[in-house]
Amino acid sequence: MKTNIETHNIDEIVRRIEAIPTDSLVVIIDKNVWEIYEKKFKHLKNATYWIAKAGEDTKNFNEVEKCIEFILEKGIIHRKSHLIAIGGGALSDFAGFVASTMLRGIPWSVVPTTLLSMVDASIGGKVAINSKYGKNLIGMFHLPMNIWSDHSFLKTVSEEHILSGKGEIIKYCFLDCDIFDAVISGLEMREIISKCAKFKQNLTEEDFRELGRRKILNLGHTFGHAIEKIYSLPHGVAIVWGMALVFKLFDDKKNLCHLSKLKTALHMPKEKSPWHGTDFPTTRMMDYFIRDKKATQNKLVELILIDEIGNTKILPVSPKDIKEKIKRIINELNKLTI
Amino acid sequence: MKTNIETHNIDEIVRRIEAIPTDSLVVIIDKNVWEIYEKKFKHLKNATYWIAKAGEDTKNFNEVEKCIEFILEKGIIHRKSHLIAIGGGALSDFAGFVASTMLRGIPWSVVPTTLLSMVDASIGGKVAINSKYGKNLIGMFHLPMNIWSDHSFLKTVSEEHILSGKGEIIKYCFLDCDIFDAVISGLEMREIISKCAKFKQNLTEEDFRELGRRKILNLGHTFGHAIEKIYSLPHGVAIVWGMALVFKLFDDKKNLCHLSKLKTALHMPKEKSPWHGTDFPTTRMMDYFIRDKKATQNKLVELILIDEIGNTKILPVSPKDIKEKIKRIINELNKLTI
Repeated sequence: MKTNIETHNIDEIVRRIEAIPTDSLVVIIDKNVWEIYEKKFKHLKNATYWIAKAGEDTKNFNEVEKCIEFILEKGIIHRKSHLIAIGGGALSDFAGFVASTMLRGIPWSVVPTTLLSMVDASIGGKVAINSKYGKNLIGMFHLPMNIWSDHSFLKTVSEEHILSGKGEIIKYCFLDCDIFDAVISGLEMREIISKCAKFKQNLTEEDFRELGRRKILNLGHTFGHAIEKIYSLPHGVAIVWGMALVFKLFDDKKNLCHLSKLKTALHMPKEKSPWHGTDFPTTRMMDYFIRDKKATQNKLVELILIDEIGNTKILPVSPKDIKEKIKRIINELNKLTI
Repeated sequence: MKTNIETHNIDEIVRRIEAIPTDSLVVIIDKNVWEIYEKKFKHLKNATYWIAKAGEDTKNFNEVEKCIEFILEKGIIHRKSHLIAIGGGALSDFAGFVASTMLRGIPWSVVPTTLLSMVDASIGGKVAINSKYGKNLIGMFHLPMNIWSDHSFLKTVSEEHILSGKGEIIKYCFLDCDIFDAVISGLEMREIISKCAKFKQNLTEEDFRELGRRKILNLGHTFGHAIEKIYSLPHGVAIVWGMALVFKLFDDKKNLCHLSKLKTALHMPKEKSPWHGTDFPTTRMMDYFIRDKKATQNKLVELILIDEIGNTKILPVSPKDIKEKIKRIINELNKLTI
């Protein structure tokens, strides 16, 4: 199966949803999105609505259970029901988890409303909720049938969300020369989005279960997830710091420099690190590190490194080595600015 | 992938578990089984143990969450960890659900300890927990790598559990002439178990996601699940009543007669129905019926009927038709004895 990715305006998206051949729609929509776009979506035929808590607050077993029991109680669900997820990356993670577990999986489609979701989260079928011990540690693979984007959603999205999406775009820049050039040369955002989405789709088709090349999408994510949890930062913003940290630990000055250039090209502010003025959180970081779901048999975590733009290397490293590397450059880490 | 199904004694099963190429085992074992077999299993190398509540009591989000967070907290889990489920059908449903959702799926193997689990529940990769609104409504497909059976477990299993397993064996008798003959001719139980397991494995390989022929395994299950919930009966016992009900509703005297014969051949007592002395629970039954996960687009539920032994028919029926059929023969239903 292949996800059908298209760009339309909201009214056309509504028509596409109504054209799905089913008599039972389940619409899971982020609370913040519902508040702005209720008028557009509230008249869908044969639809049952679940307004989910905003953002990551919905990604836990408690909310999954409440949502699933609410839907099952209605008695409208069968294996040809279709679930529509409308919101950002957290919403589609959650809604996909619900679609994947109800009746052993029902088909679903996504309407991404944030930049992060358009370029990354909605694509590739990874769905998940969070554990106390780390982000997205509980989840499965469940590919959506359609992703219908409308860039106009970005007008009502907070600056924080835009920065988060830009963080993931920077990740793609390191993975693909064409995207790197597009960003550096200041191409229009809608074209950059489309390039990123296509890049991720190709990669995830090639390696759906992340046994090989799909892993490169985790650039910056091992440390990024830890930073996201420790400092409650938006995902993409944390990923930028995750990349900075990897480059710094492996003394990769060239890519640290690229990172600064890309931030400038995307009009992102130069910033001090989240741990600036305090000590670098080595212990908490290592705690997340050993629970990373990308850890292998020998407790090694596979870090993604960049040789040249578009040229990646997967390096299995032990928590011990990482801890020592951190110790060695801890003073520099405390001063890190990107 | 194909599940490797083997029969060994417990000590050999322990050796097989220890030979799994991983440095991180997660053992999920039913409380009742642990109490009897702790000595056998407690010395597994690199193992983390979760003693699950007995039977269906463990099949809910609350227990899933507690179990997953317990395992993640240990920090021993990675994608090449291996989960071992030891117990009956409910335990493997639960443990398989955990294996399927941790880190987007880790490999797992099953040691079935009940008759029901040996002939049915452990085979085919269906994993699930229960909803308030019906059994197994929340779950996925996640095929185990190995199923290692030892018939000696059956010595310590309650009579109720044995009856439950025999109920599913009767189901197979209707689906396959060879199994029917084996049971009627009084073949040894271990051979019957092996025939049933093989039959189910072939069928589920052919149609893993239950889009076609695998559906015939649901013979008796639509009503059976409702009866199981309403009267708190063991699964297989409820399935026998589910089959009786379908045959009765479709006036299938021949198969009702076969049903009695098979019960006798398996030394199962002749019994009055669970609703004997009260009214047939039409309303509650219909309530489960409309929420059945096998319901199709047009709210039809696909019932499995038997033409001749080994010869099935899938009939989509509406809740309305079923309700009328029940009404028409309600007096006979109240007197049903099998």
